[in-house]
Amino acid sequence: MKTLKVIKIGGNIIDSEDVLQTFLENFSKIKDSKILVHGGGKLATQLAGKMNVEVKMVNGRRITDKHTLDIITMVYAGKINKNIVAKLQAHQCNAIGFTGADGNSIVAEKRPVKTVDYGFAGDILKVNTNTLEILLNNNITPVFCAITHDRQGQLLNTNADTIASELAIAFANLYKTELYYCFEKNGVLQDVNDDDSVIEKINSKTYKTLVDQNIIANGMLPKLDNCFHAVNNTVYKVHIGKPEMLFGSTPHTIIQAK
Amino acid sequence: MKTLKVIKIGGNIIDSEDVLQTFLENFSKIKDSKILVHGGGKLATQLAGKMNVEVKMVNGRRITDKHTLDIITMVYAGKINKNIVAKLQAHQCNAIGFTGADGNSIVAEKRPVKTVDYGFAGDILKVNTNTLEILLNNNITPVFCAITHDRQGQLLNTNADTIASELAIAFANLYKTELYYCFEKNGVLQDVNDDDSVIEKINSKTYKTLVDQNIIANGMLPKLDNCFHAVNNTVYKVHIGKPEMLFGSTPHTIIQAK
Repeated sequence: MKTLKVIKIGGNIIDSEDVLQTFLENFSKIKDSKILVHGGGKLATQLAGKMNVEVKMVNGRRITDKHTLDIITMVYAGKINKNIVAKLQAHQCNAIGFTGADGNSIVAEKRPVKTVDYGFAGDILKVNTNTLEILLNNNITPVFCAITHDRQGQLLNTNADTIASELAIAFANLYKTELYYCFEKNGVLQDVNDDDSVIEKINSKTYKTLVDQNIIANGMLPKLDNCFHAVNNTVYKVHIGKPEMLFGSTPHTIIQAK
Repeated sequence: MKTLKVIKIGGNIIDSEDVLQTFLENFSKIKDSKILVHGGGKLATQLAGKMNVEVKMVNGRRITDKHTLDIITMVYAGKINKNIVAKLQAHQCNAIGFTGADGNSIVAEKRPVKTVDYGFAGDILKVNTNTLEILLNNNITPVFCAITHDRQGQLLNTNADTIASELAIAFANLYKTELYYCFEKNGVLQDVNDDDSVIEKINSKTYKTLVDQNIIANGMLPKLDNCFHAVNNTVYKVHIGKPEMLFGSTPHTIIQAK
C-alpha cells in the first residue's frame, strides 16, 4: 500500500514569508503522495480591518457573515492559496489549489442554528476522493484552503484542522495515510512552558490520563480530538510538532489508536 | 477527433448575479469537453477603492503593482473563481478553479520594461496541456481566471482574452477546438450602433477590408487579433457574440482562417 501524507500548516508558517518559503522548498522534496492543507493566518483579519468589516466572535469562534465569507474566500483561496501553488511550482512540485468546491471534493452543510448562528460555517458531510485520486495518481499535489461548499452553490468556512483529518480519513482505505499537524511547538508538552518536554507517544488510554491530569487542556483539546477522530477511523498515525518533524528527526508527538 | 469548447466570459456576465447564474446553468449542460475563462469585472476596481489602492493606467492599460496584483489574485482567483466553481458544482458540472500556476498550466514572463513598466503583467510563453488533459479526459471542467505565473514563484496578471486564445491554440492538435468570446454585443457589427447588423463571417481577407474601411476599430482590434492568432494556429473556429450564441441560434460572428 502506498503512503499518503496529509500535512496541515497554520498561521506560524503562513505569516512569515521566509518560513513559508523554506517549508515549501522542503515539502516539495517529499517523495510520497501528499496533500497540503493551510489555515489563514493573520491576513484575513488584517483585510477585514482595512475594509471596515467587523470581526464577530462568539465563544472564541468567528461568526462568518456574508462579508467575512467574501474576505476569507479572497484571502484563503486567492492570495494565500495561489501564492503557495506558484511557489511549489517553482520547486517542481506540480500543485493545484483546492477548496472543497473544486472537484466537489468536500461537501459540508451550513452549521444548523441552535443558540448561536455561526453564519456561513460548514460542517463536513462527505469527502469525495475520486478527482483527488486521479491527481495523486498523476503525481499532482492538491493544496487545500479552509473552505468547503454545500453542493448548492454556497461556499462555507471550515476549520483547517478538520479538513485535514477528514481528508486523511477518506483516503485511509486507499493509502497508508499519515496526518501531520504542524504548529509552533515541538508537540504535546508535559509542561506547557518547556518545549523540550515533548510527550512522544499518545494512545487512547494515555490520552484519557493526560486529560484527567489537566496536562492536555484548552486549545489542545479540539486538536487532539481531531487526531483521535483520525486514528480511530483507520488513519495510520498522526504527528504533531514543528514543521521540521517532516524533514528530520526533530522530537514530536505521535498519536496512534493503540 | 473530439470537440473542445474554450469559452471566455467578461464583465457583462460576471457583474450580474442573475446573468451569471443563468449562464452557468446553461454552460453546465454543454456535453463537449469545455474550459471556461473569466475576466474580472468591476469587483477588482471596487476593492481597490475600498482599500485605497490607486488604479494606475497608462495608454488605457492597468499597471499591476504589488498591491494591485494582490487585489487581482484575491478577487479573480478567490471570490469570482471559487463562486463560479461552487455554482457549477450545484449544476453537476465537475469544475476545478485554475490560475496558470495550478498544474503549471500557463507559464508567462513578466512583461519587459521598455518605455512603460507594466509591473506584474505576464506575457504567455507556454501552455502545458498535460494536467488539463488528464482532467478533460475525466470529464472535469477547468475554470481559468486571468492569472498566470513565471515558474519562479511569481503570479502575473494576464489578459483573459489572450489566456482563452492560447489555451485554444495549445489544444488544437488534440481536439477540434472552438473558441467562444462572449461579450455584450451580438458580434462584430457593420454599424456599431445597430446590434442587428452582425457580420456573420469574417476571414483573413474580409478582415483586412473591414479594418481598411474602419468598420473594425478601437477595442475590437485587439479582440480580433486574438481571434486570427487562434484560427491562424489551427483553432477550428472562433465565435464572437452574446453568451446565448452557445445555447441556441442567436446571430453572432464566426471567424475562420479562410
